[in-house]
Amino acid sequence: MCFPGYAIVGILHPWYIFTRKSNNANCKMNVKRRFTKPVHVGAVQVGGGAPVIVQSMTSTDTRNVGATVEQISRLEEAGCEIVRLAVPDKKAVEALGQIKKAVGVPLIADIHFDYRLALGALENGADAIRINPGNMAAENLQSVIARAREMRSVIRIGVNSGSLEKDVLAKHGGRTADALVESALRTVAFFEDNGFDALKLSLKSSDVMTTIEAYRGIAVKTQYPLHLGITEAGGLLRAAVKSSVGLGILLYEGIGDTIRVSVTGDPIREIPVAYGILGALGLRRRGPDIISCPTCGRCEIDLLSLLEEVERRTEGMKRYMKIALMGCIVNGPGEAAEADIGIAGGKGAGVLFKKGKIIRKIKEERFVEELMEELGRM
Amino acid sequence: MCFPGYAIVGILHPWYIFTRKSNNANCKMNVKRRFTKPVHVGAVQVGGGAPVIVQSMTSTDTRNVGATVEQISRLEEAGCEIVRLAVPDKKAVEALGQIKKAVGVPLIADIHFDYRLALGALENGADAIRINPGNMAAENLQSVIARAREMRSVIRIGVNSGSLEKDVLAKHGGRTADALVESALRTVAFFEDNGFDALKLSLKSSDVMTTIEAYRGIAVKTQYPLHLGITEAGGLLRAAVKSSVGLGILLYEGIGDTIRVSVTGDPIREIPVAYGILGALGLRRRGPDIISCPTCGRCEIDLLSLLEEVERRTEGMKRYMKIALMGCIVNGPGEAAEADIGIAGGKGAGVLFKKGKIIRKIKEERFVEELMEELGRM
Repeated sequence: MCFPGYAIVGILHPWYIFTRKSNNANCKMNVKRRFTKPVHVGAVQVGGGAPVIVQSMTSTDTRNVGATVEQISRLEEAGCEIVRLAVPDKKAVEALGQIKKAVGVPLIADIHFDYRLALGALENGADAIRINPGNMAAENLQSVIARAREMRSVIRIGVNSGSLEKDVLAKHGGRTADALVESALRTVAFFEDNGFDALKLSLKSSDVMTTIEAYRGIAVKTQYPLHLGITEAGGLLRAAVKSSVGLGILLYEGIGDTIRVSVTGDPIREIPVAYGILGALGLRRRGPDIISCPTCGRCEIDLLSLLEEVERRTEGMKRYMKIALMGCIVNGPGEAAEADIGIAGGKGAGVLFKKGKIIRKIKEERFVEELMEELGRM
Repeated sequence: MCFPGYAIVGILHPWYIFTRKSNNANCKMNVKRRFTKPVHVGAVQVGGGAPVIVQSMTSTDTRNVGATVEQISRLEEAGCEIVRLAVPDKKAVEALGQIKKAVGVPLIADIHFDYRLALGALENGADAIRINPGNMAAENLQSVIARAREMRSVIRIGVNSGSLEKDVLAKHGGRTADALVESALRTVAFFEDNGFDALKLSLKSSDVMTTIEAYRGIAVKTQYPLHLGITEAGGLLRAAVKSSVGLGILLYEGIGDTIRVSVTGDPIREIPVAYGILGALGLRRRGPDIISCPTCGRCEIDLLSLLEEVERRTEGMKRYMKIALMGCIVNGPGEAAEADIGIAGGKGAGVLFKKGKIIRKIKEERFVEELMEELGRM
């Protein structure tokens, strides 16, 4: 609210999507990201021109230090750059201290209702805390702000359609995008009045369109970095679709500094989806991008088995590489000309190609082996 | 190209996304769709204000009539409204005739290279044909156009980055969005010069950003309905992410009259993803929308098992309904206030709620049964 230039951003914002410039041989357009004020969650910069940061949240009981550390390590290995944990009681505060010593990735403590848990989390090494403004009293928030300032910690203001202030709900007639924006701005003003601006904001709804409009609304009114997410997105596939639509639209408009794809179940599964969204928009690249045709009446190889085997054998691969698995030899190398490596099938055999150039013919039973060998050499 | 008003659309287009109006109590924004010229694929209208139509393509050998009819029936049952089939040879043309008699959904014959297959498909009842302009000679195309006009069939011009004309590739220095647009416009002009305008267009690339820019480019230059898709999108999850990002962005801007989510494997799996994308944007609603929290250290029920069981038991349900499965009782009914029905878990028990109002307490082992009973009554 108080940064010079936000008015300019506000005026210019609608034009961002029409001012992209090409930067490579194929004239691909780039997302032009909105300028935001940087904050530092531990060693990880969020906003201010940093890459869009991928984060997640543990699903373990935080008080179970061993299980939580194990899950955090798996998240980190998968490419998660910031991890959030629920801190629902004093025991969890103590566990946080032990967890912090055992992991390298920055940790955010998720706090509701009790400001003393926030104070404890900050003392026990939380790099940031997330609070929901709807459920903490003003005088208690001031204590938290004072301690966060001392500890040089970041605070995420996590506004959620489920816990809006009653007067905001009444004014807007429901859990609307404008209501989310007003609630967020009100809390931001409170923090600024208390001299604190190491903030990140999130405005979440389980409704994708409400979420999009809320973030578009806040983006023209503050320069704080934004944490994007669709809340309660559901099981893996449903969550992937909703998050890809919602976060994709916002990121394409340049909005968003860190993202979390919420998936019910093992949070590790969120990370490839997050990188998939960022990869589709050319914002981040991690791991293999396997392109493969949907198969049709022209396909004469078992493409699905080939795909599943290649997916299995490249799982956990960190390097970005475009691998094409094409059902038919006629279109294959052409349609996948940009792939670093690929196979196009014929009848019981196929060709191995690199960047659209055919390298050699191989038999179907040797597809996976020869592809993996070539990948190993690359 | 030749429709009055396209210039106005061209000028107005960038503003569409800033002119949405709210239409319900929660002030949710609506996508304002671009105006397109309607075409009719059999009884299904595409464009001209019709809902965004969901289509797919069979992965069976078209010559295997039994297997193809079976797959088409499953696609139709899942909500697929137009089905495309590969027609690679004369036997497939004959099979198409038999398939057409056995199914109700409109069929599109996918033809490459050989214009005689296109003629045969039209004679055997194809409601539309899809041709790739990159691989058919002009004089042959004219025969196809003449026959399509007689049969009142629609033609989809399916431009694909893998088969662009050599001079277009040379001019644009690669498989760029502009190259796709130029190739499409060139073919459109050819069809119009031959007096044919029952057209649908697609401009596909496996690169999401190229696809987005190509469709944005063509959308301001013609009023023909657009078939959206990300080609070679890969396995289910990857394809869901890429398609949701790419199609989501375009649909949000009002671009797109029919969509296909390409997935390697059983095409039935494409349909819930397609409806998921349309549902997220409020464009179509089909089947249950299950929202569920990602679980965290506060969750004391087995939410993932509950979700999986509810997903299994509501599979194939056609009616739209928002079902919420929430891990914790405190946030549950509030965060999911818009759900038609939901469960919020506590410790070994939970509450059943409807539209944010708690109906009754239930034990964890009875969650699924009582939810399904209530669903049955609704």
